Amino acid sequence: MELSANQIAAMVSGKVEGNGDVMIHEFAKIEEGHPGAISFLANPKYTHHIYTTESSAVLVRDDFEPEKPVNATLIRVADPYATVAHLLTIAQQMMAPKRKGIEQPCYISEGVEIPEDAYIGAFAYIGRGTTIGRGAQIYPQTYIGDGCKIGNETTLYAGVKVYAGCVVGDRCIMHSGVVIGGDGFGFAPDGGRYTKIPQIGNVVIGDDVEIGANTTVDRATMGSTRIKDGVKLDNLIQIAHNVEIGESTVMAAQAGIAGSTKIGSHCMIGGQVGLAGHITVGDRAQIAAQSGTQKSIEADARLFGTPAMELREYGRQAVYIKRLPDLFNQVREMSRAIKEQK
Amino acid sequence: MELSANQIAAMVSGKVEGNGDVMIHEFAKIEEGHPGAISFLANPKYTHHIYTTESSAVLVRDDFEPEKPVNATLIRVADPYATVAHLLTIAQQMMAPKRKGIEQPCYISEGVEIPEDAYIGAFAYIGRGTTIGRGAQIYPQTYIGDGCKIGNETTLYAGVKVYAGCVVGDRCIMHSGVVIGGDGFGFAPDGGRYTKIPQIGNVVIGDDVEIGANTTVDRATMGSTRIKDGVKLDNLIQIAHNVEIGESTVMAAQAGIAGSTKIGSHCMIGGQVGLAGHITVGDRAQIAAQSGTQKSIEADARLFGTPAMELREYGRQAVYIKRLPDLFNQVREMSRAIKEQK
Amino acid sequence: MELSANQIAAMVSGKVEGNGDVMIHEFAKIEEGHPGAISFLANPKYTHHIYTTESSAVLVRDDFEPEKPVNATLIRVADPYATVAHLLTIAQQMMAPKRKGIEQPCYISEGVEIPEDAYIGAFAYIGRGTTIGRGAQIYPQTYIGDGCKIGNETTLYAGVKVYAGCVVGDRCIMHSGVVIGGDGFGFAPDGGRYTKIPQIGNVVIGDDVEIGANTTVDRATMGSTRIKDGVKLDNLIQIAHNVEIGESTVMAAQAGIAGSTKIGSHCMIGGQVGLAGHITVGDRAQIAAQSGTQKSIEADARLFGTPAMELREYGRQAVYIKRLPDLFNQVREMSRAIKEQK
Repeated sequence: MELSANQIAAMVSGKVEGNGDVMIHEFAKIEEGHPGAISFLANPKYTHHIYTTESSAVLVRDDFEPEKPVNATLIRVADPYATVAHLLTIAQQMMAPKRKGIEQPCYISEGVEIPEDAYIGAFAYIGRGTTIGRGAQIYPQTYIGDGCKIGNETTLYAGVKVYAGCVVGDRCIMHSGVVIGGDGFGFAPDGGRYTKIPQIGNVVIGDDVEIGANTTVDRATMGSTRIKDGVKLDNLIQIAHNVEIGESTVMAAQAGIAGSTKIGSHCMIGGQVGLAGHITVGDRAQIAAQSGTQKSIEADARLFGTPAMELREYGRQAVYIKRLPDLFNQVREMSRAIKEQK
Repeated sequence: MELSANQIAAMVSGKVEGNGDVMIHEFAKIEEGHPGAISFLANPKYTHHIYTTESSAVLVRDDFEPEKPVNATLIRVADPYATVAHLLTIAQQMMAPKRKGIEQPCYISEGVEIPEDAYIGAFAYIGRGTTIGRGAQIYPQTYIGDGCKIGNETTLYAGVKVYAGCVVGDRCIMHSGVVIGGDGFGFAPDGGRYTKIPQIGNVVIGDDVEIGANTTVDRATMGSTRIKDGVKLDNLIQIAHNVEIGESTVMAAQAGIAGSTKIGSHCMIGGQVGLAGHITVGDRAQIAAQSGTQKSIEADARLFGTPAMELREYGRQAVYIKRLPDLFNQVREMSRAIKEQK
Repeated sequence: MELSANQIAAMVSGKVEGNGDVMIHEFAKIEEGHPGAISFLANPKYTHHIYTTESSAVLVRDDFEPEKPVNATLIRVADPYATVAHLLTIAQQMMAPKRKGIEQPCYISEGVEIPEDAYIGAFAYIGRGTTIGRGAQIYPQTYIGDGCKIGNETTLYAGVKVYAGCVVGDRCIMHSGVVIGGDGFGFAPDGGRYTKIPQIGNVVIGDDVEIGANTTVDRATMGSTRIKDGVKLDNLIQIAHNVEIGESTVMAAQAGIAGSTKIGSHCMIGGQVGLAGHITVGDRAQIAAQSGTQKSIEADARLFGTPAMELREYGRQAVYIKRLPDLFNQVREMSRAIKEQK
């Protein structure tokens, strides 16, 4: 890909300021700029880099007013961050175009129909009675058990495993190592040993869900574990049986959600957070990294720590704990003063 | 599967109360019941649901006495929970019957014998000198290195990896993404760099062990990492080299056990717990989620927090920390009082 | 492998004391010794075992002076730990010799050249434009996308996934389930939903890097996620997009590093540690297991807890918190004393 600043400006309805003929063949962060690269300036904290960046062009806001001379060609747009996302999408489509066709050898069970515009990679396995959506990208070494449904334009990267009976919506992305539909962790104590409770439910994943590498989502004991539309899960997350995650909730890496917990929509769950089973988390709740709780959480709460508490309380506790040495000193002196007065 | 309430009662030696001809084709939780489903009532907390459930039949205890009229057909049994586990097992066997035979292509090293009633999925790889037990279910894309032993009736789901020389007992279940026998994390400092300590031991897993998706169990430096009979490990757990886990111990997701630690039998380790290396955990110890410790733990202990402490101490500390603001206020007032008295 | 103590001593330039003809065919820890095994004594804590070990031979330091009679044959060397690592390496090479050749079926894209001394396992997938180094060991079911570079003598164990465009150096070891180059977790809020930010960077891994089972390293949004020479990562670790890890830094299992954080060289990061995004960690910093921080960390720091603090402060806080019950008692008594004086 090599385009002039003028050509890029035309693609994104931007206004060029400076040399419009400079050729661009790469993206770079503004602080790591180099000739031939285009950068963007969205966060004001980074403004000072625009005067020194070596990038050939920079996307800036319509109303940006430089305080010093700028070497780079400016391309003025309404929203530089959204514009760069748009340009990155175009670049990615040029770098990694959608695949089509069936690589051999692969294992497609009898009766399964593969749409003409879908991709099935080598060593992929597709079980009986499974349906594969239009344009689906099923990378090599992927396993899809019997009776599954994979939506349109959904991508399963190399090595994803989907157990029998699970449903994945449209336009989803599952990264390598994701396991959908393994058995929930359910055992009945039985005279000092444990008997397995069969897990006969499934997993149902909505549309536009992205799940990071090596994340696991267990099937329900009965019924369904549900990941609703627009949910984004990072890598190495554990979602236990019968959990429900509401629309457009995002969860950072290594978080773990125990069985039957219901999380609302538009929540933000930090990395390494642990939530106990059988609790509810209200819509838009935010839970800081490494926090943990065994209690339900109200809508719009912002929690920190283990056990998790409101930000204000968490801050207060931290301050009091920090001041403990002073308190011990003060009490020692007071004790002496009292004795002297006796 | 469609059976009448009478037929189900006959299978589980239950007594029908109400319409025995109602047809059942599904399981459902009592609070999510619907016509055609069977539910169960084991936990008294859920009793109120029996008066409103839409399920067609409910398994209840022999001595259950409804306080209001119940629409559903009741099937009275000694232990509803055990009965439902039994019915789920039957249902699961009907839904996912055991597989037999060898799918092609797969890679079976010369000299390896596959019992007639075992299943080897497509793209599975079985190394030299490995033995596969009767009725074993080796799903697609599984890797079993050289010189391994996989027991009778053991299931390795799609994509499990077992390194050379490891042993898995009878009736085990390993979920997708499990890695058995990767190298332990051992390095010798060597002038500012690290030299790898070869890990020439193996992993030995007993009978009736279940291991959840993407859990990793490292091989021993020398000798064996040991997971004993009846152990149940959830997803995304790390078991380091030379660890030993005693019989019927259960461990929740994302727990991590560092090298050479010995855990007793019948322990319960919570999610995201971290145990340091070279410690021992006594039989029947229980460690709450997200706790961590560097010290050995006595038998029957119940620990919470990081560093982990006994429940009583943990609760006391929490109470004291909560009362800190009051203490600071009280000390301030006392200080004023003392000054006034001077 | 069966060698006499004399033969082993000759291999490692050691001096024999006792019966040099005793035959050795196995390694064992000194406390688990048995006839036919060789053990080593490096840590003085284990010295008492040398008087009771059943091992036939023990590697000891040049200057070791037994205080009681020893049954085992002693082999005196300058550094018993380094010597045992050397012997283990020889043993491992005899147990698991390097593989050569291409197993079928596998999928090698047109134009990719496989060096004569490399190994490509069955069901491996190698994308277009990818280069494979001399002596590389590419185990079964591994996926290497388009345009990757795998260095000389590097081992990818069964099922490793390397996304398109990523680079792995020489003499690296990636264990099963490792995912290199999955998309970073980047989304732009867009009216209550999230739009994916394409991740068009890659991952660049230096030489002599070892990465444990099921660890994930995400590709950069732009530019590269970088793991420098000699880094050792344990199992189930999360490395987010645009992270950099300096030379010879080691990280224990289940640690998680958020986006764009830069870690220096020779650091030691404990298990289950969580580091926030966009911070820096100075060279040689040590962070204890389960700690977490959102702040940058200075070189040579030794941190504990969440939020992480210096060891001295952490210890002091712990002591003060432990003494809280006493403090509350003391204040209660003082309060009474003051009232009595009024």
